[in-house]
Amino acid sequence: MNAAVSAALAGDFLAVFPAEAARVIETMPEEAIAAQLARLPPARLVPVMNAMTPMIGAAVLQCLPEPARLQVLQQAERSRAAAFLAQAEEEAREALLQLLPAGTAAQLRRMLDYPEATAGRLMDTVVFSLPAEANVGRALALLREGGNRRVRLIKLLDAENRLAGVVDLRELALHHADTPLSHLMVPVPAVASPMDPQEEVVEKLETQDLDELTVLDPEGRILGVVRHHRLLEALKDEASLDIQTMVGAGREERATSSSWLALRKRMPWLQINLLTAFLAASVVGIFEDTIATYTALAVLLPVVAGQSGNAGAQALAVTMRGLALREIGIAHWFAVMRKEVNTGFWNGLAIALTCGIGVYLWSDSVGLVLVIALSMVISMVMAGIAGALVPIVLARLGQDPAVASSIILTTVTDIAGFFSFLGIATLLGSMLG
Amino acid sequence: MNAAVSAALAGDFLAVFPAEAARVIETMPEEAIAAQLARLPPARLVPVMNAMTPMIGAAVLQCLPEPARLQVLQQAERSRAAAFLAQAEEEAREALLQLLPAGTAAQLRRMLDYPEATAGRLMDTVVFSLPAEANVGRALALLREGGNRRVRLIKLLDAENRLAGVVDLRELALHHADTPLSHLMVPVPAVASPMDPQEEVVEKLETQDLDELTVLDPEGRILGVVRHHRLLEALKDEASLDIQTMVGAGREERATSSSWLALRKRMPWLQINLLTAFLAASVVGIFEDTIATYTALAVLLPVVAGQSGNAGAQALAVTMRGLALREIGIAHWFAVMRKEVNTGFWNGLAIALTCGIGVYLWSDSVGLVLVIALSMVISMVMAGIAGALVPIVLARLGQDPAVASSIILTTVTDIAGFFSFLGIATLLGSMLG
Repeated sequence: MNAAVSAALAGDFLAVFPAEAARVIETMPEEAIAAQLARLPPARLVPVMNAMTPMIGAAVLQCLPEPARLQVLQQAERSRAAAFLAQAEEEAREALLQLLPAGTAAQLRRMLDYPEATAGRLMDTVVFSLPAEANVGRALALLREGGNRRVRLIKLLDAENRLAGVVDLRELALHHADTPLSHLMVPVPAVASPMDPQEEVVEKLETQDLDELTVLDPEGRILGVVRHHRLLEALKDEASLDIQTMVGAGREERATSSSWLALRKRMPWLQINLLTAFLAASVVGIFEDTIATYTALAVLLPVVAGQSGNAGAQALAVTMRGLALREIGIAHWFAVMRKEVNTGFWNGLAIALTCGIGVYLWSDSVGLVLVIALSMVISMVMAGIAGALVPIVLARLGQDPAVASSIILTTVTDIAGFFSFLGIATLLGSMLG
Repeated sequence: MNAAVSAALAGDFLAVFPAEAARVIETMPEEAIAAQLARLPPARLVPVMNAMTPMIGAAVLQCLPEPARLQVLQQAERSRAAAFLAQAEEEAREALLQLLPAGTAAQLRRMLDYPEATAGRLMDTVVFSLPAEANVGRALALLREGGNRRVRLIKLLDAENRLAGVVDLRELALHHADTPLSHLMVPVPAVASPMDPQEEVVEKLETQDLDELTVLDPEGRILGVVRHHRLLEALKDEASLDIQTMVGAGREERATSSSWLALRKRMPWLQINLLTAFLAASVVGIFEDTIATYTALAVLLPVVAGQSGNAGAQALAVTMRGLALREIGIAHWFAVMRKEVNTGFWNGLAIALTCGIGVYLWSDSVGLVLVIALSMVISMVMAGIAGALVPIVLARLGQDPAVASSIILTTVTDIAGFFSFLGIATLLGSMLG
């Protein structure tokens, strides 16, 4: 065990910074983590497990002795406990649920029924709520007893137990004990239903600056609350998704998904990519005679396509991110395109220069240098235009600007690269000698 | 103006949901937004401008009449006002700063001195702080007067005006007016210095579940506070960064950056990519004789490389995201690789089948079908391995698993594709006829 790990496991550090401790000890093998954690009292074990990432936490949980395991499942946030159970094998999960108190087990089962990445799976089912008739004094008394430090908004219920509104905790500080909570109540800024996809949860988080999101059943009764840090996790999850969708790996796939899911989600896009690859190949086919005469062209073909592909990917990435962060909008298409044309032209010139030197040293042919230099500039400008416009056009068409954007871009840059390189070579054929 | 926009601008909606209103009206041209917003009273105008994205907000600000412009700069959050000013031309910025009250202008100037994407640029300089000797009653009285709804943690200062600790607002509710705040004070969980990069700010947000982060000068005096929603923006910004760094566009570049910055940041990677492209080309060069005999190989070469490139990019994207979200760690390298080998093999078989049919229809050559089918499976398995291992190895070496990962991957998939396709073709040369 290294120094950082032993420091992280030292009692005091663990008590004050459970999340940091979790980050550090996650680097150890699961059995070793479990062996260390099993020694802790529940009050220290539970916060660390709460902060553990689901996959590692689930594995550690399996290695813990049974009493500790049950303590974690009962005392950790419900959403975290459900995430741990979701990672376990069907049989192991059932065995654990049997051992838990009936109420806890029922709540966990209900959560596990909701699909992954929905509000129902992210919510915590332990909620602080009061009847709307209660007064400030009553709320303070209950808060003192419960010692629930997570409460920020007190939920008020009407006579039918439906959510009527919320009272901010700070209002309790500013008003007399006799004040009815209903006087301090404000409408709930946003609620979710348990089947709402994570996407919508994040959308609400962003537009409303929320700390928590109450999840209601169709009758308006509280099922749970998605809290601050689960909202943050969901936000991070969503924000990093473009990297997958741009290359045609589905939204649903995770690094921990089965090969079977990966296969099903990726295959359709690979088949579409094959179609576009044939399209690009047919461009090469047009110039088969030229290639037959100068096989050096076949050798250099991937260089031109590779450079314009990379340059286009850079333009695509920057533009897509700008759209995702709303730094630019569809309306800015011309400014973005102008920037990318400029960048493509000057980068193209610089690359044409280095590439030209390389090709001259290899082939000793000024004609070949001229062909690759010219086509490099042309195809890198085309790549810049495509990189800027593909996501903007997708957004304009009401599509996710990321979906398959990389596949569309590669088609454009391949065709532009092949056509310019082989086309110019055919035109300047006499110089290639 | 369409229905959504007029609804968004209707007084009531704007008052309750300034952030949503900002999202909707951002789709209009800047002059039109300004014309609409100029009619609003400051109490409605400022929250909408606060929620506007910096680039669009800055443009709108330029179009507003001067009194409204000054109101926004004075009353909006300092960090937002600074972001607007940062987008303006040097001269226009100075002119505006001259018109502002000296104190506000000095604060804004100081913020603009910090580099972009640092804590100093993200912070709000308006902070609610009290001497540690004050009691609960005094704090409540000041809160009632100020009506500052953003306060969550009261900062307590020592005799030298240094940050001594914080008191959670809920504690005010739970204690008597005579209680000295110093009794309720807890240590500050995390602070930042104004030059801290956004990366570190996000790191603290994630590990500590923070609502706000206090920014201190070297003497421990409060400079400002980075609040909840700026932290969220920073988190989103960081989480979406991999898409740029993987293709060698720098961390610093934005869709709104100049071509000159784009050129400088992207060029080095394009030159490195050129080097790797020459490496791949040299593989093709080995087989120049084979290509001279069968030019159909040159036509199909991009198909094999393109498919394995796309398959590898899918594996890379899913693995990189898993690492970024901490769903997997370096320790899971074998499980991830096994998944990708599996997926690559079965996807390879399926693509080999469709591709084989296509090639047979085009060339009528069973030999060519055999060559492309075999090399497709081999190169897609290789692509899967590379896609899984590149980010994991980068992380193991202590590097950012995203940086240039796509460039490294493409080199591997190109070489694997070219080598397997042309190598098998050379071995089975007699069958190609």
